[in-house]
Amino acid sequence: MGYRNKSVTVKVPATSANLGPGFDTLGIALDIYLEVKLSLSENDKIIYHGEGQDTINQNIKNNYVYKAIQLLFEKAGEKSGVHLEINNNIPVGKGMGSSAAAIVAGLFAANELIDNSFTAEELVNLAVKLEGHADNVVPAVYGGLTTAMIYEDQVYYQKISLPEELQIIVIVPDFNLPTEKSRSVLPEQLNLTDTVNNLQRACFLLASIFNGDFTHINKAMDDMIYQPLRKQFIPGFDEVLTAAKSNGALGAALSGAGPSIIAFAGGNADGDSIGEAMKKALLEQNVTSRIYNLHPNQHGIHLQTESM
Amino acid sequence: MGYRNKSVTVKVPATSANLGPGFDTLGIALDIYLEVKLSLSENDKIIYHGEGQDTINQNIKNNYVYKAIQLLFEKAGEKSGVHLEINNNIPVGKGMGSSAAAIVAGLFAANELIDNSFTAEELVNLAVKLEGHADNVVPAVYGGLTTAMIYEDQVYYQKISLPEELQIIVIVPDFNLPTEKSRSVLPEQLNLTDTVNNLQRACFLLASIFNGDFTHINKAMDDMIYQPLRKQFIPGFDEVLTAAKSNGALGAALSGAGPSIIAFAGGNADGDSIGEAMKKALLEQNVTSRIYNLHPNQHGIHLQTESM
Repeated sequence: MGYRNKSVTVKVPATSANLGPGFDTLGIALDIYLEVKLSLSENDKIIYHGEGQDTINQNIKNNYVYKAIQLLFEKAGEKSGVHLEINNNIPVGKGMGSSAAAIVAGLFAANELIDNSFTAEELVNLAVKLEGHADNVVPAVYGGLTTAMIYEDQVYYQKISLPEELQIIVIVPDFNLPTEKSRSVLPEQLNLTDTVNNLQRACFLLASIFNGDFTHINKAMDDMIYQPLRKQFIPGFDEVLTAAKSNGALGAALSGAGPSIIAFAGGNADGDSIGEAMKKALLEQNVTSRIYNLHPNQHGIHLQTESM
Repeated sequence: MGYRNKSVTVKVPATSANLGPGFDTLGIALDIYLEVKLSLSENDKIIYHGEGQDTINQNIKNNYVYKAIQLLFEKAGEKSGVHLEINNNIPVGKGMGSSAAAIVAGLFAANELIDNSFTAEELVNLAVKLEGHADNVVPAVYGGLTTAMIYEDQVYYQKISLPEELQIIVIVPDFNLPTEKSRSVLPEQLNLTDTVNNLQRACFLLASIFNGDFTHINKAMDDMIYQPLRKQFIPGFDEVLTAAKSNGALGAALSGAGPSIIAFAGGNADGDSIGEAMKKALLEQNVTSRIYNLHPNQHGIHLQTESM
């Protein structure tokens, strides 16, 4: 048959980008996952379970995992079909990095399966080209808190470990906000004051986390670039942030392009109360939602190969 | 006589702000100093030695140290005259934080002399109001690499220690560039791409320094906000950066409002060659200059009190 007799399993974390001031820069990996099992097969067979299954199964060959695999195969000259099984626990279209996770999973699994012709660096660059920006791709691959930089079309990153006990509460509204719609309201021009404010907050947030000093991160998680414009899509946005902070959250912000909202809390905080308060603030605007009580993922992508 | 019989000596480091991408945010303390000795006296007596003495002695009561002392005395209701001796090794009007050092020295010395009625935090906030921005004041007070944030008119900061062996080469052109002139060319509006580029670079630079990974800081020290506009005032600016990097500097940028240019180099680099190459690149544009081979100052302001 000529097909290699192995199967690759890859597990990629959800991610939250921006963290307030770090637009298109900062990102954090979370401990819920997209899992993909991939092997070569004469004919394509794709099974998709979990978040987004109703929509995604309607046009299964359009899903990002499969498309990323196809792209990598094309680049490598591999023409085989695949047996692909996807189990996804990352909410889709909610600003939690589901598309970045899917692209990363597809590229890394395919590359592993056909014997590593591309380096991790090449795969990250490829994933960023597919995804359009680096702030979710980089933490999905490397874990922790990351800061991504694009320089002359190449991706560079630095990673900072997060305290294991950090609680991350994400409130996920039951409506979708497509990234394109969320990006369509971004300003083309910013005034210098707003730019300086974001620079100061992003650097302060990063240094606070590095120093393990969370005293003022509620101030540092403020944003002047996109939140003021994007929050129009999330009824009760300000009230959710207030609810989070008044119940003990260290800080809160829109998660990526939204509509999810992310809050940080210390190890001793009552994460359940924070989540419930955020959910209640949304419900007062007639928006139903789900609560995720999460922790940082520190290691990023996990790959495993088995002989069949 | 009613005057307290003590004398206060304060030593404040030079500072370099921005470090490329961290406009009005990042700053670093350097190991050259402004030293001030202050005691109460029936009549004002001011002695000024060192950098800027010819100009400053023409209107000695206009110098920032004395003015800061007067302001603090006024706030505290202290009406005494002072005996003030200033020894300044920080080049004046060169983008090396001489005015921040002078304001900080005056406020802290005066406060110490009249028995600490203000906290360090209050003095920093006062210094930032006098100076107009926080990026030099904060490292002058706290040392190291600092990231300053203004939030609702209050100054917040985080400090990161720098590797002791880091070499900091500063090339100081023999012409002055007043901060007001340098700030007058700042854009009121920035496009989103430039803003994102600076955010990415500033965070990457900061994280690289945390992580002690200097591999790509030459890329991260690029700036899209002010350097493209300010470099018109420094003939040969691009050539000086190139000269620094091609002689082993890790990265280089305009120091604060300029005209000085700062370069970082590792402990094993030939700092002298880097400085000479930078000086030569300026000289080719008929600009003479001085070379400073420096190291980080880690502790910021140093105060000492003596009984007389």
